[in-house]
Amino acid sequence: MTDPVLYIGNKNYSSWSFRPWIGLRATGIAFEERLVPFDMAAGNPAFRSFSPTGKVPVLIDGDLTIWESLAILDHAARSHPEAGLWPENPAHRSMAMAMSAEMMSSFPALRSACPMNMRRTRRPIEVTPALQADVDRIQSLWSDCLRQSGGPFLFGRFSIADAMFAPVVNRLDVYAFETSAVVADYMAAMKALPAWREWEAAGRAEPWVVEEDEA
Amino acid sequence: MTDPVLYIGNKNYSSWSFRPWIGLRATGIAFEERLVPFDMAAGNPAFRSFSPTGKVPVLIDGDLTIWESLAILDHAARSHPEAGLWPENPAHRSMAMAMSAEMMSSFPALRSACPMNMRRTRRPIEVTPALQADVDRIQSLWSDCLRQSGGPFLFGRFSIADAMFAPVVNRLDVYAFETSAVVADYMAAMKALPAWREWEAAGRAEPWVVEEDEA
Ligand SMILES: N[C@@H](CCC(=O)N[C@@H](CS)C(=O)NCC(=O)O)C(=O)O
Ligand SMILES: N[C@@H](CCC(=O)N[C@@H](CS)C(=O)NCC(=O)O)C(=O)O
Repeated sequence: MTDPVLYIGNKNYSSWSFRPWIGLRATGIAFEERLVPFDMAAGNPAFRSFSPTGKVPVLIDGDLTIWESLAILDHAARSHPEAGLWPENPAHRSMAMAMSAEMMSSFPALRSACPMNMRRTRRPIEVTPALQADVDRIQSLWSDCLRQSGGPFLFGRFSIADAMFAPVVNRLDVYAFETSAVVADYMAAMKALPAWREWEAAGRAEPWVVEEDEA
Repeated sequence: MTDPVLYIGNKNYSSWSFRPWIGLRATGIAFEERLVPFDMAAGNPAFRSFSPTGKVPVLIDGDLTIWESLAILDHAARSHPEAGLWPENPAHRSMAMAMSAEMMSSFPALRSACPMNMRRTRRPIEVTPALQADVDRIQSLWSDCLRQSGGPFLFGRFSIADAMFAPVVNRLDVYAFETSAVVADYMAAMKALPAWREWEAAGRAEPWVVEEDEA
């Protein structure tokens, strides 16, 4: 069996790519990485050659092509039960899925005003009520989990829920949002993961600058 | 054990409510339904009393509250393995998850121009290129699945993928999009489900009219 191939975009900016990448890397699942930089001017036609949606991330596992970050993580969880990607406790697993689905479908203000940016120097932006509401909802979700589990990750051990929120950890950090102590500790634990540091260093070293994502 | 409680919005319009409702009903999973009508003027404060996001659907199962349609369906699949909510074949299951995640995160043109509406008399609307692109992508996804499985549902037997796309079956129907024969057969199979007929009849009988959703 050869390792599956994970197609990703730029490490500095591609928030959806970061999710499966850190999920697999942090739990020791082997994969081959193929980075295809954005080409904003050309509208990313390069992604079309391997991605059914024209978007990244995409995982190629044998003759199976899997798109959508959450589906890639769930596929990896089933192919590698030893990695413990989903929380073991069934109630926690249902919560982790609900949070992951909410991440996918929600927080439009945060996603548009605060692009993920591993390289950005920490500094605040103008905070609209909609943006503050997104950040408040996220901090309340995280706090409930962390108080129940005791940390360091949302459900104790690192899980898909942490992978899905990883780009939000970067956003709350580099756009300098105020956080509670429990949230600050969680963000520190995420940023201390060897997988996080590896991704961040590679993102910082990239030559590409995407103007649209420099808020 | 008492049955779980599923909170839903109006049956005529609430597309996200329809997904878990038809998933559970079509596979024979017992639940108690609580319908809370939209109150557009008041901004749905009624949902806040039971829903952590202020949105429907929400499932209350014992002391667990689960929000997000996909998370409710996945929770039901794990609580009721006998219902076969996910396809059994692991590759099909990964595809079903990818399609469900794409449904959640995508098709903005279709979702905004063509609200689900069980009561609408079949008639076309103005089709923009973005809307046509969403409809083309969906028909190509469905056709690939149906050709592989042979139908009548996306993966042969009814699964979560069908539940997630159920509101889109209504949309392609009532906004009178052109469909291939294989897609038309699929839509007919969905609309012939006793669970579909039960929901549709109830939606048609509702007194509420939401002007925003009458396109
Ligand atoms: N819902 C998708 C979102 C994927 C997505 O939007 N990816 C962005 C990069 S972070 C992309 O490929 N954009 C290119 C484009 O839209 O042309 C997922 O979870 O994977
Ligand atoms: N991603 C959510 C979407 C839920 C959703 O948007 N529900 C709508 C009704 S179909 C709602 O509750 N809207 C009320 C509001 O936003 O105030 C899911 O999959 O459950």
